[in-house]
Amino acid sequence: MRTFIIKANEAHTRADFKLSDLPGTSGRIDVLCRFLNSAFLLSHGFRKNVRVWLLLYGPPNPPKAIRFEGPKLRVRLNPDERSTAKLIMRALKAGEGLREPGKEVEVYPGLYVSNRTFEDVVRLTLKGSALYYLHEEGRPVSEVSFPPNVAFVLGDHRGLSGEDEAFLNGIAERVSVGRKSYLASHVVAYVNIFLDSLENPP
Amino acid sequence: MRTFIIKANEAHTRADFKLSDLPGTSGRIDVLCRFLNSAFLLSHGFRKNVRVWLLLYGPPNPPKAIRFEGPKLRVRLNPDERSTAKLIMRALKAGEGLREPGKEVEVYPGLYVSNRTFEDVVRLTLKGSALYYLHEEGRPVSEVSFPPNVAFVLGDHRGLSGEDEAFLNGIAERVSVGRKSYLASHVVAYVNIFLDSLENPP
Repeated sequence: MRTFIIKANEAHTRADFKLSDLPGTSGRIDVLCRFLNSAFLLSHGFRKNVRVWLLLYGPPNPPKAIRFEGPKLRVRLNPDERSTAKLIMRALKAGEGLREPGKEVEVYPGLYVSNRTFEDVVRLTLKGSALYYLHEEGRPVSEVSFPPNVAFVLGDHRGLSGEDEAFLNGIAERVSVGRKSYLASHVVAYVNIFLDSLENPP
Repeated sequence: MRTFIIKANEAHTRADFKLSDLPGTSGRIDVLCRFLNSAFLLSHGFRKNVRVWLLLYGPPNPPKAIRFEGPKLRVRLNPDERSTAKLIMRALKAGEGLREPGKEVEVYPGLYVSNRTFEDVVRLTLKGSALYYLHEEGRPVSEVSFPPNVAFVLGDHRGLSGEDEAFLNGIAERVSVGRKSYLASHVVAYVNIFLDSLENPP
């Protein structure tokens, strides 16, 4: 199983944005749409062994955690940004009334929303997966021996804060796909194709 | 210099599609938008050593060739699909009156449109670059020694036709990023990051 976790510091936590201007009105939910595309999609296929956690920390009600669970997902994920943004909107609407921090609402089979924090999700993930923080100064992924269950944490276009990085120190190994600073969706596309090439791919 | 060439068999050759429904109305120009994103964009940066040729073969006036020339490009390429689709629309509008097969119209500095065919563009590219056809059954890219100027041909979501493949036989080496069938944008993201890791990157 492959888990990808992205913390989006400005992504809106209410469905108050325009599909016709995602970059300008949503706190860059377009970044999350491309992230989901890279995590799940093959040409004419879908990766069932993938889980994605989107951690939204923008206004007005942070945090919101949206989970896409590959093995159970029964809603079609299309490659284009707009249709994926609609799914995120539905999840945010379904999560509007949520008060309890630990409760998850099932929006569709395999798609869930909750008020979980970034730290909650990382701790939960640690129970079943080896955790890696994708960072340009980490160890090259080609030198890492990956176990069957792996989880990768990425920052959005602004990157993770010092506080988030301090939290990850000691629990997530820093790994890298290269020394440049790449877009999160490109990193995930690279990691997926790289993992596929291993003798025992996670 | 890195050149990426994609043949889009259904992509509309007139700006007659809706930005609010690219997958349904444009012959999948959304695929080309994600392709451009992967070819050019870094996190907070832009690859100047990249050229992209989009070969559009859909209705009503095929072919149209749109060239994005990294070293000269003076129009901003944003990561989202919609703003990139607007650039493609402008190029198609600028190319509406074109009759001569060899003439290129400059839409903005570094962005051009013409009636060149896929074969024209491949022949032109061969003059200055080693040509590769990205195909799941090709030689792994990790085993290839890439010269300073490289060009990669990719098919769209439907792939290249037998006729196109016959044309490429003998002039383009088949190379592969893996045995699965990946989305064109993911392949280009992978190839760019892979080339960056070489001692003398093209």
